[in-house]
Amino acid sequence: MTTQRGFPADALAIARAYADGSFSARELIDATLARIDAYDVHVNAFTTITRKRALAAAAALDARRARGDALPPLAGVPFAAKNLFDLEGVTTLAGSRVLADAAPAARDATLVKRLVDHGAIVVGALNMDEFAYGFTTENHHAGPCRNPHDLTRSAGGSSGGSAAAVAAGFVPLTLGTDTNGSVRVPASLCGVFGVKPTFGRLSRHGTYPFVADLDHMGAFARNVDDLAAIYDALQGADPLDPACAQRPFESANVESRALRVARLGGYFDAHANDDARAASHAAADALGAARSVEYPDADAARGAAFLITAAEGGQLHMENLRSRYDEREPLSRDRLIAGALLPAAWIVQAQRVRAALRSRVLALFEHYDVLIAPATPMVAPKVGDEFMEINGERLAVRPNLGLLTQPVSCLGLPVVAVPMRTSGGLPIAVQLIAPPWREDLAFAAARRLEAAQLAYCPPPPSFDECALAMGANA
Amino acid sequence: MTTQRGFPADALAIARAYADGSFSARELIDATLARIDAYDVHVNAFTTITRKRALAAAAALDARRARGDALPPLAGVPFAAKNLFDLEGVTTLAGSRVLADAAPAARDATLVKRLVDHGAIVVGALNMDEFAYGFTTENHHAGPCRNPHDLTRSAGGSSGGSAAAVAAGFVPLTLGTDTNGSVRVPASLCGVFGVKPTFGRLSRHGTYPFVADLDHMGAFARNVDDLAAIYDALQGADPLDPACAQRPFESANVESRALRVARLGGYFDAHANDDARAASHAAADALGAARSVEYPDADAARGAAFLITAAEGGQLHMENLRSRYDEREPLSRDRLIAGALLPAAWIVQAQRVRAALRSRVLALFEHYDVLIAPATPMVAPKVGDEFMEINGERLAVRPNLGLLTQPVSCLGLPVVAVPMRTSGGLPIAVQLIAPPWREDLAFAAARRLEAAQLAYCPPPPSFDECALAMGANA
Repeated sequence: MTTQRGFPADALAIARAYADGSFSARELIDATLARIDAYDVHVNAFTTITRKRALAAAAALDARRARGDALPPLAGVPFAAKNLFDLEGVTTLAGSRVLADAAPAARDATLVKRLVDHGAIVVGALNMDEFAYGFTTENHHAGPCRNPHDLTRSAGGSSGGSAAAVAAGFVPLTLGTDTNGSVRVPASLCGVFGVKPTFGRLSRHGTYPFVADLDHMGAFARNVDDLAAIYDALQGADPLDPACAQRPFESANVESRALRVARLGGYFDAHANDDARAASHAAADALGAARSVEYPDADAARGAAFLITAAEGGQLHMENLRSRYDEREPLSRDRLIAGALLPAAWIVQAQRVRAALRSRVLALFEHYDVLIAPATPMVAPKVGDEFMEINGERLAVRPNLGLLTQPVSCLGLPVVAVPMRTSGGLPIAVQLIAPPWREDLAFAAARRLEAAQLAYCPPPPSFDECALAMGANA
Repeated sequence: MTTQRGFPADALAIARAYADGSFSARELIDATLARIDAYDVHVNAFTTITRKRALAAAAALDARRARGDALPPLAGVPFAAKNLFDLEGVTTLAGSRVLADAAPAARDATLVKRLVDHGAIVVGALNMDEFAYGFTTENHHAGPCRNPHDLTRSAGGSSGGSAAAVAAGFVPLTLGTDTNGSVRVPASLCGVFGVKPTFGRLSRHGTYPFVADLDHMGAFARNVDDLAAIYDALQGADPLDPACAQRPFESANVESRALRVARLGGYFDAHANDDARAASHAAADALGAARSVEYPDADAARGAAFLITAAEGGQLHMENLRSRYDEREPLSRDRLIAGALLPAAWIVQAQRVRAALRSRVLALFEHYDVLIAPATPMVAPKVGDEFMEINGERLAVRPNLGLLTQPVSCLGLPVVAVPMRTSGGLPIAVQLIAPPWREDLAFAAARRLEAAQLAYCPPPPSFDECALAMGANA
């Protein structure tokens, strides 16, 4: 399968073909930029194209190959990063107009630098919800990011641009972040693989923060091998981030024994529609999960995550919410102010709930290696949709797309999101949830779904019909 | 020096003399209870006397000695615990009327059990500020705890009963707790030694909580050897407390190289009167501290500790503040309600400040082993005093006795409080502050002050004149 004509679509396939001399990096980057130029007008995944840097990196890499130097493992692979990652010379927007006049970043974020050191070539920065607070990437400044598989639908958020750029076939790898579901929700809606590792696994240095206790870095790809490759390229100790200053490298690719797998029922069924539940059951069947188990008081965990997020986000942005309210994203500014004004006792209680539930949920992992749950309650809603109906309950779309991800991330557990096919044709992802620091177990389960041909990353669209449809609608 | 006629005053001296057969445990406990019966009416350190248990323990120990069994290291040493430690068969009051009807504790707190396992004999529970929120032990339910060295003055708090019981010569060892200064403040005002180890060092199992992030267990004694002995008896992993489930034993008595010592200036001078500053300078001179250094933004650390404490305490007690307001301590109930209602953003900011300052203050310990600061701004105020004047500034007594302790405990640093003599004759303590998990350095510095005869634990009063004076005032 190819996206840019004549080039492989996947990261490791690109690296292999490039190393074999099948094409030059210059040719690949030219084709990559051309596709983005031609079609991102429909998707709106990119907010910045780092054309000059990409071409310079391609030229340098081609020269290196010409000299016969050893090539790094991701040599020539194009990638892009959510626009809260620092890219040297680019202003880090974090989706906000408030930062538009800030100085360009002096150096790359640690994770960007690691990919570059592995030979990958950065081609731009990606659309997101303002300051990562949202699940739909309906950004009022940059415009909404659209789902490549149906341009009338949302890409999900807050790392919507990151998922859409992979789903659209613009680049095979992207960086995102996940505080409450911002990797897993867009992976689900766009039909790509995503990884949100254990809290503290990946360096946050050089990224714009949101919630200190909950912010995770993550990545997107089109298959498990690529996702494992980017995860392994990203991980390891970073002296610049106290939270992972001592973190050892532990490969995603550990040969695993038989996996003990269970499906999360209860809350995770109640807030999932037929498509989402069917995906969860299909994954459970394929992984031999005979039982459904309960995450105790998942609703309380979700409530705790919600309160902590609103309060921390509100505190972080208090100054600009006061002084630059009119420039703030209309979809989130009032929620943040309300969060800042919550009574302190609620936040104290939320942290207590989180700590208590963590020990109760960790007990489940004495019996299971992997827990399965849908990543979103439904497939991608339409851009602009205010409400969705889940099992007869009418829910606001924007805060509730994270219903199934928030109880997991607020405990810091590692998750690989695997896209599946629904009866309607649109993708939806399941979360493969592992105990802390055991990403390898989630990757092993993802490989089995992929081997069973249950994982489904839809082929990138040609955009010709879409472009026509958009034209007809315009 | 003796208190109970014919018995040593100090813990290790008691244990040695008891092992030598100088007296029976029954004789010592009889004398101990008689002294408490006779004089605690003036001090009001005890809220419960565990007479029957103490006599039974004494009899059992005497039988053990008669059999020729090996004796544990604190055999026969009487002790008592702040009334927030569970004592089997005794209702844990935590200073409150709200808990008066609660069931008696089913078993001892871990730290009580450890002392008992070391042969010590518990004789009762000690007065404190309600729910440990206060610095003066002016408890409206139990009555104020009075300073044994001047019964018109406060013993300090919230572990006022614990410090006063040692200062009065009732028992040589007591248990207390320190969230914001509740070991160090009463140690300073009563003129006894106190230790507040590193956050997480001592088990909190079986104690009534206050602020999860800040609660430290601690102890009081009349000299450094005794304090080191009780500290070593108390420490070590406790599977019943997740915070110290893995904690190794690390003795207080490590032979230390030359200590690098500095005095904390700035904030710690500005909030100390002449007595307090003189004590700090005297300790600095004796320990060869040539320099005064700055704890950056100590006022912000203190503010953070204050806000977190009020919010967590308010959350913890919300239900009884709502339903049993009239039974709550008048000195703290309104402050707790206000704490619960603080805006969440303030608490988030307080936690951020705390984390940021922690790394800045830890940097000081790259150059120094021990930092010196006064423990209180002044010597013991009068019971009932509302205000104190410190360097021309009029400050409310009750919240501000912790001005110099809060910035230290909110970072979890270990401290040994060493009492010193003031020109007016009343004691005041200095804090010897060490890096996390290096209690041994603080103990080493305390030993040097003791060897230099600068440490001053005033002899227990005879109470005869005091009793007469109280009678004359009545």
